[in-house]
Amino acid sequence: MSETTAREQQFTRGREVLDAVDGEAGAKVIDALADVSPELAHQVVAWAFGEMYARPALQPRDRQLVTLGILTALGGCEPQLDVHVNAALNVGLTPTEITEAMLHAAVYCGFPRALNATFAAKKVFAERGLLPVA
Amino acid sequence: MSETTAREQQFTRGREVLDAVDGEAGAKVIDALADVSPELAHQVVAWAFGEMYARPALQPRDRQLVTLGILTALGGCEPQLDVHVNAALNVGLTPTEITEAMLHAAVYCGFPRALNATFAAKKVFAERGLLPVA
Amino acid sequence: MSETTAREQQFTRGREVLDAVDGEAGAKVIDALADVSPELAHQVVAWAFGEMYARPALQPRDRQLVTLGILTALGGCEPQLDVHVNAALNVGLTPTEITEAMLHAAVYCGFPRALNATFAAKKVFAERGLLPVA
Amino acid sequence: MSETTAREQQFTRGREVLDAVDGEAGAKVIDALADVSPELAHQVVAWAFGEMYARPALQPRDRQLVTLGILTALGGCEPQLDVHVNAALNVGLTPTEITEAMLHAAVYCGFPRALNATFAAKKVFAERGLLPVA
Amino acid sequence: MSETTAREQQFTRGREVLDAVDGEAGAKVIDALADVSPELAHQVVAWAFGEMYARPALQPRDRQLVTLGILTALGGCEPQLDVHVNAALNVGLTPTEITEAMLHAAVYCGFPRALNATFAAKKVFAERGLLPVA
Amino acid sequence: MSETTAREQQFTRGREVLDAVDGEAGAKVIDALADVSPELAHQVVAWAFGEMYARPALQPRDRQLVTLGILTALGGCEPQLDVHVNAALNVGLTPTEITEAMLHAAVYCGFPRALNATFAAKKVFAERGLLPVA
Repeated sequence: MSETTAREQQFTRGREVLDAVDGEAGAKVIDALADVSPELAHQVVAWAFGEMYARPALQPRDRQLVTLGILTALGGCEPQLDVHVNAALNVGLTPTEITEAMLHAAVYCGFPRALNATFAAKKVFAERGLLPVA
Repeated sequence: MSETTAREQQFTRGREVLDAVDGEAGAKVIDALADVSPELAHQVVAWAFGEMYARPALQPRDRQLVTLGILTALGGCEPQLDVHVNAALNVGLTPTEITEAMLHAAVYCGFPRALNATFAAKKVFAERGLLPVA
Repeated sequence: MSETTAREQQFTRGREVLDAVDGEAGAKVIDALADVSPELAHQVVAWAFGEMYARPALQPRDRQLVTLGILTALGGCEPQLDVHVNAALNVGLTPTEITEAMLHAAVYCGFPRALNATFAAKKVFAERGLLPVA
Repeated sequence: MSETTAREQQFTRGREVLDAVDGEAGAKVIDALADVSPELAHQVVAWAFGEMYARPALQPRDRQLVTLGILTALGGCEPQLDVHVNAALNVGLTPTEITEAMLHAAVYCGFPRALNATFAAKKVFAERGLLPVA
Repeated sequence: MSETTAREQQFTRGREVLDAVDGEAGAKVIDALADVSPELAHQVVAWAFGEMYARPALQPRDRQLVTLGILTALGGCEPQLDVHVNAALNVGLTPTEITEAMLHAAVYCGFPRALNATFAAKKVFAERGLLPVA
Repeated sequence: MSETTAREQQFTRGREVLDAVDGEAGAKVIDALADVSPELAHQVVAWAFGEMYARPALQPRDRQLVTLGILTALGGCEPQLDVHVNAALNVGLTPTEITEAMLHAAVYCGFPRALNATFAAKKVFAERGLLPVA
């Protein structure tokens, strides 16, 4: 197997994981990179999803809890929260668990980050007909 | 007094402080949380304002100086700066003091954060007819 | 029930949750605050643990996954990671899940944060005789 | 030479450097500050550009590589990335080097920051007719 | 007046402000830069203190409240908090106001940052015989 | 070529790049991960160095300028600055260029970050007999 083939296989595997976890929202980000940084698109798919997400040591649901914590804490990641609130729902977290994770975040990174993340979640929930959160 | 009543009393006390400090801008945030995370709304009101803001150990004006410093430094807190530049004016800080605090912030967290905060303040000043800042 | 009593009850409830989750490591932090900011100690116990951690909407294990994500992303939280890697073990996360969560974090907040968190975990694992991680 | 004159000279020198590096994008920021914080405008021009950028110890191209790294890492600096991707092009960095620097940033501050910066660069490249990046 | 003289005058003015605000703790930082980055030392003194701190638009006490908010929020600024808790005391803030500002910070940037700042303050208070804080 | 072999090849290639860029300082980090997170060690070597650093689109010297900007801005990355100030020297940046990059950073992320990075550089320069910086 040539190096090129190994690279293609990693991409193919990553694309399957990306589609399963992030769905349409992830695909849009990848497409938008095509004319500006195709290698960044490749690395998101082949490495982040093909290598990291594909590892069995942490359940998909658990990966999204960690991810929601990180994205809430970083701030300025509203586009990524849009993708990953969808991903969190896709892998089985409930709207209540998602908003509770963001409420919990207020303890560790303060209310502004918790509020911004919760409003990003509200946008996704509205698009998927999940409001009001019980 | 039952636990529920204690919780209600904290909310009532917090709402008074929130209205006095943040005014309409704060109320809008609370209302927008009703269908996505009512508990986050409760905690902002009952804990942040009912417990923390209500403490006499720091003057309201001083709390806003600290808050402006934090929100400027964090970045990505434009919605919160909108609320707290209003709050800063409500508790007696002048537009000059507010922009000077943000200029001072450039020393400690750099010009991009100082610029973004200053443009958030400009939006509030414009809405309240306070431009140009003398 | 007087306001003082409500405050005391929140503290008592919080202390039970804090002891169950954080154990000795949490207690040391609270004790160290006694002579400099007893109110900060009170709020960590009564609010963070008595109100937020006590909520049933998210499992203790899930709260620690979110917390590990946040603390890894924030950076400069080695003392808090020391407490919360212990907490994560106390509520049932395995060393493998903890290090995998930090590896996963590299995707979202980069390798330096992932490395610093992993070395904080290594210190705790060593103290508890959990090295090498299988 | 009076203190006022020294201040004016620093501003004049800074304005020349600002115009050479940032071009029109920088000038717009300065103009927008006139009615809210003229001193912040002065310090950006006179100090950041007149004193710091004017120093010969680092090439203009190298300053922009450092700046792109910082702005990518900070997050929430899309307005500043807009100015500095233009600046990077103005001082001789190619679109490929700029997107590669942001891809490289994924290693150190994660994919969300790298993606947000890359999309800020895409906007500038589109405005200057530089898409697709070869 | 030559440019060199203007530069020297800014340094002299800045050194007076630095000594008045930061005292011995600030002087140590400046001295430690002499063999690695004398220009950074110059800019801290001449610009940060000679230009920014010297402005009358914000009281020294208010500047320290903003500064404490920023340094608490940034994290990883324990050496700077050491200098600026001393500075805060030098310009008239009480230990109670300082710890209250850090408690207040928990609302906006979370407990880990508030705790780390409070322990930095505890170290300074201990050195100055100000413990326990009443 | 099997998947395992592809993985081993990436590691081998990465190790060569890591050794060339980071030298002994990088090797120590990798070794320290062996008993706590061998997969994190693998990914640093195989992905960060084998895939990202190995790309020819940006010169090694330019990658370190971007890296120094990011690590300075992030804060709390003193261990990584230790490695990458060494790396910067290894790929041809001079002590003067390194300290100038950190001085430049003060414009964009403030003096505390610039100071902490400069003191991390001072430690490396001292170890390599490069003080005083001319």
